[in-house]
This record gives sequence, structure tokens and C-alpha cells, in this order.
Amino acid sequence: LLFIGEALNATRKRVAEAVLAHDEEFIAGLAQAQVESGANYLDVNAAASNNDEVSDLVWMVKVVQGVVDVPLCIDSASPKAIQAACEVHRGVPMINSISGEPMKFNALLPLVTKVKGKVIALCIGETGIPKTAQGRLEVARGLVERLEGAGVEREDIYVDPIVLSVATEHGAATVTLETITLIKRDLPGVNTILAVSNVGFGIPERALLNNAMATLALHAGIDAFLADVRGKGLIAHAMAAKLLLGQDPFCGKYLKTYRAGKLM
Amino acid sequence: LLFIGEALNATRKRVAEAVLAHDEEFIAGLAQAQVESGANYLDVNAAASNNDEVSDLVWMVKVVQGVVDVPLCIDSASPKAIQAACEVHRGVPMINSISGEPMKFNALLPLVTKVKGKVIALCIGETGIPKTAQGRLEVARGLVERLEGAGVEREDIYVDPIVLSVATEHGAATVTLETITLIKRDLPGVNTILAVSNVGFGIPERALLNNAMATLALHAGIDAFLADVRGKGLIAHAMAAKLLLGQDPFCGKYLKTYRAGKLM
Repeated sequence: LLFIGEALNATRKRVAEAVLAHDEEFIAGLAQAQVESGANYLDVNAAASNNDEVSDLVWMVKVVQGVVDVPLCIDSASPKAIQAACEVHRGVPMINSISGEPMKFNALLPLVTKVKGKVIALCIGETGIPKTAQGRLEVARGLVERLEGAGVEREDIYVDPIVLSVATEHGAATVTLETITLIKRDLPGVNTILAVSNVGFGIPERALLNNAMATLALHAGIDAFLADVRGKGLIAHAMAAKLLLGQDPFCGKYLKTYRAGKLM
Repeated sequence: LLFIGEALNATRKRVAEAVLAHDEEFIAGLAQAQVESGANYLDVNAAASNNDEVSDLVWMVKVVQGVVDVPLCIDSASPKAIQAACEVHRGVPMINSISGEPMKFNALLPLVTKVKGKVIALCIGETGIPKTAQGRLEVARGLVERLEGAGVEREDIYVDPIVLSVATEHGAATVTLETITLIKRDLPGVNTILAVSNVGFGIPERALLNNAMATLALHAGIDAFLADVRGKGLIAHAMAAKLLLGQDPFCGKYLKTYRAGKLM
């Protein structure tokens, strides 16, 4: 189970300011705080300005890898920025993200095959996000086939079933959970990832929804979370869920984390 | 979804002391705190001494119903104490509990049919707690058949699938979740209840396990929890889970509880 810290994202105002000012201390601190909370990867998004994203993302990768050892999840809508960031990244990065939208797919595929990293594949097809789990599965199947056809290893593909907010869409969480179940059943060996924070967008006490959604997603078979891992109990609830699901023999990981003072 | 507050139980030292001293203030306060936290029922167990359980339970029922309006879940190993408590109880009580152990079943059946209340039926058969979900389902089926045969309404039966601690039994939670799923599928109309706190016995940060177990049990179809409802986030996590499972249209109950300042 992977936890990818989502905090270093320039869609957040404070991060955008730090990117524009090249505030190394802030970025480094945010990186360290997430790793200390248990993040195995850190997402990095530096899209704070129209002109400088390529150099800003390269800068961010260097700053973050200067203070933490975890690999990064390179997050950009710009293939050029992703390419430049992958070139300076030490170790094997994750690319965030490819999808079934033809322009996006075609622009990123050569890079994905060249980097030989992991890649997040969103269940977004040519006409958008399918309403049904079966529809999302078919998008996933098409993406996996084309990625594998281009030489990407199946276990390096992390399919994101997409979750919208339950505030606007009554069945938003259930369709996502069903999609995870279908992907794990019909595309064995493919990994799944969930950007869990989306589910509670616009709803108070979002951490509650994140925790419950993480628990349900683990039951469905999720392999990774893109989430805010800092002090909101997400990792703790996920570890509790793994224990309940019989996936933590002798409570080993749960107790080890507790004894290290890192559970809550 | 029912929440049955479990705190008024004389197996807890402080409650036993209050029962022995007939400390009305303590018992009344604990009753009120649970109802304020969202309990729909309160479990009452007064087994603090060998000789006076009958009169102590009658006293407890009167004290509790003197300060709160919710019905009670009459909890005793003594049919005599249950009978006496039901006689003074205002409204329709729940009886905790009957099981497939022949002596217990035969002793309590006449009382259950006479009281016409709700009844908790434990998945414990003649030879104990079955290891498998299928085994527990068969115990449940036998209990439901005999209770219905004696005139008990199906919707008044709350089957408890039993959960042991995951500390001692690796698959303790999964067998329980599977049992709930089977009961809801094969015995439609029968209700299910989970004494959720057992799952984390002997493990630190039990509230985490309670919350995650409640979420998973709701996914499996649980109808009621016997739990500590006071300030540990259980009700909040359960409401979040209901929202995610598409069972709270327009976030109605979740937002209403939040606005009343009672979510967390």
C-alpha cells in the first residue's frame, strides 16, 4: 500500500506563493512533514505561472529531493514540464497522469516508455468520465492495453477510477468503489490509486469522509492513495482497515507504527 | 440505523461501584451523556453482585428512564432479572440476548414472546461460535425460524454475527463481515447488530478499529451498533460511511448533524 502525499501542489495558494518566490524552506518543510507522517511518494505540482512551469517544476524536484529520499510523483498538465522534471529526478518517478483523452495520451506515451517509471492512468475516456463502473473499466482496459502494447509493465500502471464529490453526485463514491472492484477482478496485476480527498469536496469535516472512503476503498482492493497524509488520521485508519481485512498478520505493522509513536 | 450505547454495564468497574452504592447521579449522568451523543437505545447491565442483580437491574431501569426517553436494551445472563426489568420498563424494550445454546434459548423464549419487544439473537450454537460465516448463518437461520415459530416478528429480531478481537484471531473481522452479508442476503427482513468494540480488544487506539469496523459493517448491511457512542467519532464515521454508500440523499442527515454541532 502506497501513500502519496498531495500537499506540494501549486493549486494551493500557499504553495503557489512559495513556487513563485522560490521559497526553498517552505517547500522543503512541507516535503519533510509529509514523509515524517508516512508518505512513500510525494506528488509535486508547480503550475503557479503560465510561463515558468518547466523551470519551476525542475526547481521543486531538486529542492524536495535535497531533503527527502522518497521518489516523486511528477504532476503536470504539461508534457514538457513532466519530461524536464523526470530528467533531473533521482530514482524512478511516477508520472501523474495519462488518460484516455487522445491528445494527452499521445503526448505523454513516448515519455512514459522512455522514463520506465510508474504511471497514473485516469479513467477518463474520449468523451469524459463514464458514469458507470463498467464504462470506467472499459477506459481502464483500453489504457492498459495501449500502455502494455508500448512496453509499459503492467505493475507500473496505477489506474485511478476517479472519484467526484458526494456533495454533487449521490452515487459518486459507490461507482468508484465498484470500479476498483471490477479493475482488480478483470485486470489482474494492474494497480489502482485513489485521490481520496475529492470525495468530500464542499462538505464539512472532510477528514471523516476521507477516512471512511479509504476504509471502503481498501476493502475493494485499492493499492495506493493520493492524499493529505499529515495528521488527519488517514494513514491510521488505513492501517486499522488493513488489520481488520486480515492483511496485517499478528497486527505487525499496526503495532510497529503505534510503538514508533506514528499511528496518530 | 440504531446506536445502542454500551456504557451502562456493570462489567465496567466504575459502573459496578455505582450499582452497589445505588449512585443515581452517576448512572443518570452516564445515561444522559450517551443520549446527548446520539444513542437511540441504552444497554443496561447491573450484574455487580451475585445476589441482588434482579433488584439492581430494576433500580437501574427506573433511574435511567427517569432522565432519558430512549428505550432500553435489557442486558443480563439471568432470565429472572430480564423479566423483572421488562416489567418496569416503559415502552418497548430490547432483550439482550438470546442464543442457540438450548438452556438459554428455552429459558428466555417465553419472556421474549410475552414482552413483544425486540431481541438480540447471538450467532452462538450448541457447540459455541462457528468458525465460518456459513456456520454462523445456519445458527442465525435456526434462531430466526424458532423465534418466528413462537410468534416473534422478523423485524424485531436483531442477529449479532459475533465479532472477536483481531488481536487473537487473524480473520475475526472478515468472518463477521461475511456473516452480515450472508444474513442480509439469505434472511431478508431480519436485522443485524454488531457489538463493534470487541474487534479491537487488547489493541491500542481501539477507536480507530471501531470506526473502520463500523464503516465496513455498514457496507455489509449492518442495521445497529452496540457501542461506546461518546466522543470517539463512531457515530460521525458511521454517518460519513452512510453518505459515501449513497444512503444519505443530499447529505441531509450528515449536514443536519453537523449544523447541530453534534457530528464530532
